[in-house]
Amino acid sequence: MDLDSLYLLAAVSLLSSMQMGYLARRVGWSRMAHKILPPAVTGPPEFERIFRAHQNCVEFYPIFLVMLWTSGVFFSDAAAAAAGMLYMVARQLYFNGYIQSTKKRLPGFYMALAALGILCLLGLAGIARGILRKHFHIHL
Amino acid sequence: MDLDSLYLLAAVSLLSSMQMGYLARRVGWSRMAHKILPPAVTGPPEFERIFRAHQNCVEFYPIFLVMLWTSGVFFSDAAAAAAGMLYMVARQLYFNGYIQSTKKRLPGFYMALAALGILCLLGLAGIARGILRKHFHIHL
Amino acid sequence: MDLDSLYLLAAVSLLSSMQMGYLARRVGWSRMAHKILPPAVTGPPEFERIFRAHQNCVEFYPIFLVMLWTSGVFFSDAAAAAAGMLYMVARQLYFNGYIQSTKKRLPGFYMALAALGILCLLGLAGIARGILRKHFHIHL
Repeated sequence: MDLDSLYLLAAVSLLSSMQMGYLARRVGWSRMAHKILPPAVTGPPEFERIFRAHQNCVEFYPIFLVMLWTSGVFFSDAAAAAAGMLYMVARQLYFNGYIQSTKKRLPGFYMALAALGILCLLGLAGIARGILRKHFHIHL
Repeated sequence: MDLDSLYLLAAVSLLSSMQMGYLARRVGWSRMAHKILPPAVTGPPEFERIFRAHQNCVEFYPIFLVMLWTSGVFFSDAAAAAAGMLYMVARQLYFNGYIQSTKKRLPGFYMALAALGILCLLGLAGIARGILRKHFHIHL
Repeated sequence: MDLDSLYLLAAVSLLSSMQMGYLARRVGWSRMAHKILPPAVTGPPEFERIFRAHQNCVEFYPIFLVMLWTSGVFFSDAAAAAAGMLYMVARQLYFNGYIQSTKKRLPGFYMALAALGILCLLGLAGIARGILRKHFHIHL
């Protein structure tokens, strides 16, 4: 498998990194709106929710990237890219919901977990298939 | 080197991302146990320790992934995967220790640093060897 | 494209991960200097600035890695490595500036954003060119 044939995974990765940059910028705009100068990270509940929403996205982003690429390389790049797009939509719903209220973060969060669950299962299946093929000559 | 032949590195990456998801969940369970609703990140010392333990794992996770893959691709995938497993064990010891007391985080932390040190040295050695081979035709 | 021919990208990735480890260590040294034992993350403004400087670097690091590799694989590894080195210098200026005052973080920050902007544009251009070549047989 050639690395530069994986442009679907690269495109989803690049789009998701642009989304992460955009979410960081939203936190910056919220800082300006509420006049909260760095390094402060506390303020009115609206600011603390958007700050925390971003942090949660940051915490899960490397997990997402690992699962996207292992499932994409070892199972199917199209399936991984589709689940990756779902994850990006879910993260946006999560972020936009969290801004409104703590409770409204949940639908997007569960959707993001579902997308990660799909990617993780595809990755595990793909790696297991690869090991069976290489070491046991079993072709599924 | 074929990307989908690197299933050892992929397996360690996927397992470590599942560990990171599990640690995030442990923080969520601690939130529920102490009734600390997001976006709050302060509370009793037990909660603040588990929250901080997770944050430290998040901060180091991309560093770990870069060192795992550079050492695995340019030096040896088996050696990198072994040091990667050591890192995962160390991170679990760190996390479980930190929950008990701030001091008990240290053995796991130093073990994680040792694993990162090994991966970093293997990566540097592997890249240096690759440059010597390609540009100076020196085969070590 | 062979993964182990991409030693320029691997070298910049490994150096940047060592930089991230060094910045984490700087925060640790600041903890010791100000006697701020974990899990506390508050203290005198000097500590809160260095802590926040590191956090900001952590938030952007996976974005940087994705943009470095997509631009390096799909556009040019030399151009991506050069912009990656620029990013590392910018992050160091940002970090060193932030320690002195909140305002002095800005030159390094804008320089880091510029480096990311270059990497992102190269990545988008490279992926678009790849799709045109593969699906539309248009060679630019």
